[in-house]
Amino acid sequence: MATVVTMQEALLALTTYWTERGAMIVQPFNTEVGAGTYNPATILRVLGPEPWRVAYVEPSVRPDDARYGENPNRLQTHTQFQVILKPDPGDPQEIYLGSLRALGIDIDAHDIRFVEDNWASPALGAWGLGWEVWLDGLEITQFTYFQQAGGKNLDPVSVEITYGIERIMMALQRVDHFKNIAYAPGISYGEAFGQAEYEMSRYYLDDADVATNWRLFEDYEAEAKRCIAERLPVPAHGFVLKCSHVFNVLDSRGAISTTERANAFGRMRALARQVTGLWSERREELGYPLGQVEPAPAAATPSTYPEITEPATLLFELGTEELPHAEVRRTAETVREALVGKLADTRLTHGEVRTYATPRRVVATVEAVAPNEADAERTVRGPRVSAAFDADGNPTKAAQGFARGQGVDPATLTRVEQGGVEYVAAVRTDVGRPASQVLSEVLGSIVAELRADKNMRWNDPQLSFTRPIRWLLALLGDVAVPVAVSALASGRTTRVRRTAEEPVVTVDSADGYLDFLRAHEIMASPAERRERIVAQASALAAEVGGRVDFEGEAALLEEIVNLVEYPVSIRGSFSADYLDLPAQILTTVMRKHQRYLPVRDAEGTLLPHFVAVADGACDHELVRAGNEAVLRARYEDAAFFWRADLEVSPEQHRAGLAKLAFENRLGSMAERADRIAHVATELGRRVSLAPDEAATLTRAGELTKFDLASQMVVELTSLAGTMAREYARRAGETEAVAQALYDMELPRTAGGPLPETKPGALLALADRLDLLAGLFAVGANPTGSSDPFALRRAALGVVSVLRDRPDLAPVTVEAGLASAAERIRAQGVEVPEQALAEAREFVVRRYEQQLLDTGNEYTHVQAVLPLAGTPARADEALRELARRTSDPAFADVVTALQRVRRIVPADVAGHYDPAALTEPEELGLHQELGKVREALSGDYALAEFTDAAGALVGPINAFFDAVLVMAEDPAVRAARLGLLASIRDLAGPVLDWDEL
Amino acid sequence: MATVVTMQEALLALTTYWTERGAMIVQPFNTEVGAGTYNPATILRVLGPEPWRVAYVEPSVRPDDARYGENPNRLQTHTQFQVILKPDPGDPQEIYLGSLRALGIDIDAHDIRFVEDNWASPALGAWGLGWEVWLDGLEITQFTYFQQAGGKNLDPVSVEITYGIERIMMALQRVDHFKNIAYAPGISYGEAFGQAEYEMSRYYLDDADVATNWRLFEDYEAEAKRCIAERLPVPAHGFVLKCSHVFNVLDSRGAISTTERANAFGRMRALARQVTGLWSERREELGYPLGQVEPAPAAATPSTYPEITEPATLLFELGTEELPHAEVRRTAETVREALVGKLADTRLTHGEVRTYATPRRVVATVEAVAPNEADAERTVRGPRVSAAFDADGNPTKAAQGFARGQGVDPATLTRVEQGGVEYVAAVRTDVGRPASQVLSEVLGSIVAELRADKNMRWNDPQLSFTRPIRWLLALLGDVAVPVAVSALASGRTTRVRRTAEEPVVTVDSADGYLDFLRAHEIMASPAERRERIVAQASALAAEVGGRVDFEGEAALLEEIVNLVEYPVSIRGSFSADYLDLPAQILTTVMRKHQRYLPVRDAEGTLLPHFVAVADGACDHELVRAGNEAVLRARYEDAAFFWRADLEVSPEQHRAGLAKLAFENRLGSMAERADRIAHVATELGRRVSLAPDEAATLTRAGELTKFDLASQMVVELTSLAGTMAREYARRAGETEAVAQALYDMELPRTAGGPLPETKPGALLALADRLDLLAGLFAVGANPTGSSDPFALRRAALGVVSVLRDRPDLAPVTVEAGLASAAERIRAQGVEVPEQALAEAREFVVRRYEQQLLDTGNEYTHVQAVLPLAGTPARADEALRELARRTSDPAFADVVTALQRVRRIVPADVAGHYDPAALTEPEELGLHQELGKVREALSGDYALAEFTDAAGALVGPINAFFDAVLVMAEDPAVRAARLGLLASIRDLAGPVLDWDEL
Repeated sequence: MATVVTMQEALLALTTYWTERGAMIVQPFNTEVGAGTYNPATILRVLGPEPWRVAYVEPSVRPDDARYGENPNRLQTHTQFQVILKPDPGDPQEIYLGSLRALGIDIDAHDIRFVEDNWASPALGAWGLGWEVWLDGLEITQFTYFQQAGGKNLDPVSVEITYGIERIMMALQRVDHFKNIAYAPGISYGEAFGQAEYEMSRYYLDDADVATNWRLFEDYEAEAKRCIAERLPVPAHGFVLKCSHVFNVLDSRGAISTTERANAFGRMRALARQVTGLWSERREELGYPLGQVEPAPAAATPSTYPEITEPATLLFELGTEELPHAEVRRTAETVREALVGKLADTRLTHGEVRTYATPRRVVATVEAVAPNEADAERTVRGPRVSAAFDADGNPTKAAQGFARGQGVDPATLTRVEQGGVEYVAAVRTDVGRPASQVLSEVLGSIVAELRADKNMRWNDPQLSFTRPIRWLLALLGDVAVPVAVSALASGRTTRVRRTAEEPVVTVDSADGYLDFLRAHEIMASPAERRERIVAQASALAAEVGGRVDFEGEAALLEEIVNLVEYPVSIRGSFSADYLDLPAQILTTVMRKHQRYLPVRDAEGTLLPHFVAVADGACDHELVRAGNEAVLRARYEDAAFFWRADLEVSPEQHRAGLAKLAFENRLGSMAERADRIAHVATELGRRVSLAPDEAATLTRAGELTKFDLASQMVVELTSLAGTMAREYARRAGETEAVAQALYDMELPRTAGGPLPETKPGALLALADRLDLLAGLFAVGANPTGSSDPFALRRAALGVVSVLRDRPDLAPVTVEAGLASAAERIRAQGVEVPEQALAEAREFVVRRYEQQLLDTGNEYTHVQAVLPLAGTPARADEALRELARRTSDPAFADVVTALQRVRRIVPADVAGHYDPAALTEPEELGLHQELGKVREALSGDYALAEFTDAAGALVGPINAFFDAVLVMAEDPAVRAARLGLLASIRDLAGPVLDWDEL
Repeated sequence: MATVVTMQEALLALTTYWTERGAMIVQPFNTEVGAGTYNPATILRVLGPEPWRVAYVEPSVRPDDARYGENPNRLQTHTQFQVILKPDPGDPQEIYLGSLRALGIDIDAHDIRFVEDNWASPALGAWGLGWEVWLDGLEITQFTYFQQAGGKNLDPVSVEITYGIERIMMALQRVDHFKNIAYAPGISYGEAFGQAEYEMSRYYLDDADVATNWRLFEDYEAEAKRCIAERLPVPAHGFVLKCSHVFNVLDSRGAISTTERANAFGRMRALARQVTGLWSERREELGYPLGQVEPAPAAATPSTYPEITEPATLLFELGTEELPHAEVRRTAETVREALVGKLADTRLTHGEVRTYATPRRVVATVEAVAPNEADAERTVRGPRVSAAFDADGNPTKAAQGFARGQGVDPATLTRVEQGGVEYVAAVRTDVGRPASQVLSEVLGSIVAELRADKNMRWNDPQLSFTRPIRWLLALLGDVAVPVAVSALASGRTTRVRRTAEEPVVTVDSADGYLDFLRAHEIMASPAERRERIVAQASALAAEVGGRVDFEGEAALLEEIVNLVEYPVSIRGSFSADYLDLPAQILTTVMRKHQRYLPVRDAEGTLLPHFVAVADGACDHELVRAGNEAVLRARYEDAAFFWRADLEVSPEQHRAGLAKLAFENRLGSMAERADRIAHVATELGRRVSLAPDEAATLTRAGELTKFDLASQMVVELTSLAGTMAREYARRAGETEAVAQALYDMELPRTAGGPLPETKPGALLALADRLDLLAGLFAVGANPTGSSDPFALRRAALGVVSVLRDRPDLAPVTVEAGLASAAERIRAQGVEVPEQALAEAREFVVRRYEQQLLDTGNEYTHVQAVLPLAGTPARADEALRELARRTSDPAFADVVTALQRVRRIVPADVAGHYDPAALTEPEELGLHQELGKVREALSGDYALAEFTDAAGALVGPINAFFDAVLVMAEDPAVRAARLGLLASIRDLAGPVLDWDEL
């Protein structure tokens, strides 16, 4: 193993390693790129059929990560080492692990893992499936099977390996700030690049001129278009990269509003797709100068099948590269169902079918598989009897030919009737096939048909699955079952741990395979892994007086179980100082980023410990130290933001919103916050607010969304609201104000928690109403799948809050949008009434969908939609409808009202001259209507109305029986119609009766 | 020795080599750079006192070199490998040679040379001295001692080593097109980068949008300024590089006129200087994070000097890195003179002083140096005699003290007189110092004072010379003479060939040193080297039936003699096909680029052979092959242009001038050519042209400057005119037209050949007159040392042509400028009369300077200047003046005319009423004036006038003796003054008489 001490030695070691594996070395691209992927040596070369194997260093510029060199882990330029293997060599993970050894990493001692991480760049129409590679919990490499680029399927698929060099060096050298990396003998990273890091940060964060950079964007785009028109994808690509870089610069300056972002992305996407398309065309025109990758040859179809004589156990193992954790259980289930189903279609008898799965394998066992299929009789229909025998009753030529064809004596032909016609028939015996042949077909088809949620291609010419399938093991007892599917042929070996001395081992027998695997440090059973984790983690937590809340962490536990083949729990600690940070930050990082189990005391309070679960034997001290360092770095990041943010008051943060663009016509985030505060106050006037609530609303309004300007929220957007509450508390605001600021960001997701407080709910509504009114006003309505401002979520939020809070009923969707529109107009932006109507309709449609999705009857939903402006009321009506749906009295009311509604034209107003009424039935109805109207409260809803309207059913029916509505006398006719219209209008507000 | 096969292995080998020598490795810069020098890792890091040792690959973008990938040797992006050693390690050449070994180059077998090549970027205020390194005649590396950057002296000095990787690979792999370089195993350079090469060429040459790129220039400049204002040199430098790149793009598009170029350069220079200044300041403010380089310690001053007893030979050798060839002889001479002069100032007797020099050493020998200086007596003045003796004649205390101080007995005091005062004096004997001590001082001071035309600094703290002085050898007989100067101490070793097994050898004795050196393959004597070259080259040429024109190649031979320490002549050949190219191209390439001696047949016609002179023993076959390949590549380049150009007719080339910008107000080069043709025709009308001359002028006018659009001239500007003649001939133009097109570019330099033909001369004049009139019109006059359009040379050209051709006398400078102005005005450009006057004055000043520079008397020059508009006439007058300058009759004429001129006010017109004249003397003068006027031809010049005017001397003198000019009668006075003014006017055109 080479001794790699400095960062430049590491780069040299990787360069040498990959050179020795046939990679061509190219130079970093000579314009700023955000990642090695964008170097044409990747993004263009992965297209088309030509082979390509390349490695290069790519200093990747991320203006957004600029931190003046102060943050220990963030750099505006970090160093990637990028590798492309095209085609997939079949064992890219193994080759990759060799490169880690070349870097001097003892992969036997460390915990190296492939953790699901997919990659997509909608801007490039590019995506791939793969992993982030963990070194003791630290993400050191992105490993991707590149599936599409420029919207085109890649064939062959490329393997993309991207090393994050600074991270690797910090881990290898055990330093806690990138500046302390030993870059070269005697010179640190900070000494070499510190000044550039500071100055480029200054430019990206503070000094880049916004107007100039926009102009550069335009000019680059124009040049890119020109190059595309001239069919020059190479220079065009360079200009797309330049567009992208200045866009990133503008973004880090906070100068890009959401509409500008969407617009710029659209433009860059269009260019990128043209570039990739053009490159593909040009390569084809050039006749593919590097040749074309030959697809892997198909495995030979088995020609002989071994015989067995006794029932035996079937062992079938499907070996994969690391499956996404959610696919582990699902794949085991899929395989089990397929096996059961397909075996049922055969005549092979068998015992119990079981499947197990780890990230790297699905193991199926079938007990007592019979040596052969049972024989079976089969009746084959021949010619009609009428044509089968001549006048003498002897078989005709037709019958003879049929019998010969079926290999039977004509004398043995029987008869069958079908569709009233009688035919001759031959009875044949199908001799059962050997089990090995049956299983060969069954297992082959299972592999061929296996699919997951998201599927990918690798070097196999036909298979498609969530991750590459690399080997098949099929044994019936101790006999190998030959399975051939696409390029894969089964064998009698399995692959155990990659670091094992012999990673490929022969399996003698299907029986006892789980024990066999266990002996190789693989637990095939998830349940067994789960038990082990629970036992280990509980013991480790207990050692420090803590416990793990396995119930609360059920989802995380399930994930961990499926991230390892052999769980090895290791307890790590972090500085208790970090416990000053809000617990939500700490646990979010542990769970989401690191998959660590938090350790708590008996009261559930976090302790400064965690349990990490490594995969297989490793050097515990080393792995612990590594994981602790990763967590420390992440917490240090968070603490850095936390401390920096606390030095700024909420008011100052709030003032900082002026620098954040929202939408170019709707102004800055500060203007938006002002509008929200105003609208919330305005809506507050409509509902009854206690004096303290009013004060809370006022104060929270003044601070609305201030945390968007905090570093923590800029970094971790999902903490918006959470941080507002934390920072507000620490700034001495009342708990009510802090909570209102938290509440206003709720709900975060459909079905998520809703605001607890009335001021919070009002702010939440105002927030979303402003978004809807504003963006519909400027024509930024969602279209198709494009919803950059998440207006669907905003609309759902409005509905959810209003449904949750009948006390806010005076705030209707219409009134709320109108109030929001008023503030926007005050800012000089035109808000057409049509736009508001569309916004309302948009909200109503979301509500409708929500009601349908939760199982309400379609007709009921339609019936209450007229009330959708006040969802709480509509909900009430819906409940009432559901209650009364089998009540005959209600049915009578409905029938009567529908009768009324059918006859009254829509344009007839609901008033009439009672003097024109003469018939007793109409007078009776008139009087009863008066009574009902009087009985109703000022704010009647469905229940009250229905109860009262019961009295009208008789008179209405009597009226229709006796009175001719369409009288010849116009005055009489008008009065009769007016009477019915009045009933219609009285019923109107509570329901759309026609829909029932 | 490593086996380097592919280009990527070569890059890896260099990276490894320099890493092992303590260099830090950085990445190429992530914006387009024209050379590795501009990467901040060089251009900023060479500033200030911090140490820095770095190596990196730099793909260098030169839009101008774009050739669509067709030219075998030109690429729009070529790969540099750049090394900076700061401070100079003292042996950078030796370390560098080690890197060639690491590349697998057998430096014992190849001919490796350091050939003077200095570097300057006025745009960056940067320059350095150094070499191009030759591998068998191929330039593979630029090696520079960086002296200034940003206009600041660099201290310490950095060594900059820039490898041209493609060239090296083409040589090592023996391929003749860059596309055929094996880049990586199984993939060629063309396969890897061919498409990019083509497409980027398309962009740079054809498709880059001019307006957009100009806008980018402006925007980048604005961002650079903003960064400078914010004191951020790093991003500012990035923007300067971006400016530079788009400038290069515009340039390769032919979109930059000369004024725009000067303007853009000025702006970039200003930015670059601010950036380097700011970087220096910032590093100082940061406290020099990398520390400060300590200067090399001074050598210990000798404390003891060896004694010798017999006269002995002095050997002194001053060892250097390769001197520029012109400095070899000069330094030997300088050292000889210094040695002779300084020894003369001592009392050391010695024999003959001889010096010899090679590129790496100056050897001085002095015969028979005495062991010691002779003793000398010295009289020291003491007190006045009056104060030295008391009344008794005894020495006073003063005298006693003086005697004691001088170490003599008071009784031995003598007396001396000084300024009339008598003093006592002591006579002392200065004992001669040992020769070794005397020589130590003399030799030390010679080294310390040694200077060349251009001097540089290296790692020595005090010395300064044309190249580093690395060792001193000083022996007196077999005794070492200790010399210490700055950090250098002499020894008794010398350095022989760098590839010798022992490159440092001990020298036993001063005697026989030339033989000693010869035994080590070093010929110290230039004469000996010259003889050897002549003998070898003659023999080699004779073998192929040819000869070398040593007389014609005297300058080249002298250069070659001083490029080697041990000449080894090797004959090479080239394909006879290239002989189709004009011989001037072939010999220019041989002489100027390669220092090869051309081989000719008895008639002087070129043969397809050359003699290259290698330095020292080498593998002749290898070296021959290498040199042949270099010449072939250069000829292939030329042939490539030649063939491409011949496919285009002169008319088409001429039309192509429309695409070449000249000056943004004066239009394209096509417009300029049109103007030149018109003006030449117009001027032609003023002189007598034979019909065939007129036809030639017309046709040549139509094709004027067409070759500027040819690839050959774009590439080798110095061939303008030469190629016009060649291409015109081949296109079937008459020889006269071809010659006129050649002539019109003459003279190329001051004193160079002039047009042979009248049409050519007229075109040459029109060319330069258009330049002068046009650029003065738009205010682009030369200022100070800035003369971007070479107007000084143009003015000298006008003068030279007109002086050479009295037959063109009707074409005066004034008339020519007026004619040129007319054409320019026709184009809509304003040409102020004032500008034309200034242009005329500018031409006259050049003429005046030329006359003075060639030794003419100041007064004569001033006297003929009124004729400067017609330089041929002025020349004639000047010759006449010189002839008559000692002729008393001429003196009388001058005196008489000056007398006349003194009395006549300038505003008196030269006419009078003869009737008002009454006195005989005035009437006599009047009559004589009439006769003289009648005798003169219509076009009289100085000689004719002087001869005729002799007759006026008597009458003029008589007039003044007898007549009072200022008569009281106004009419009389007017007539007398008019008479004299008439004489003044008659004399006026031939000379400015007052100046004599």
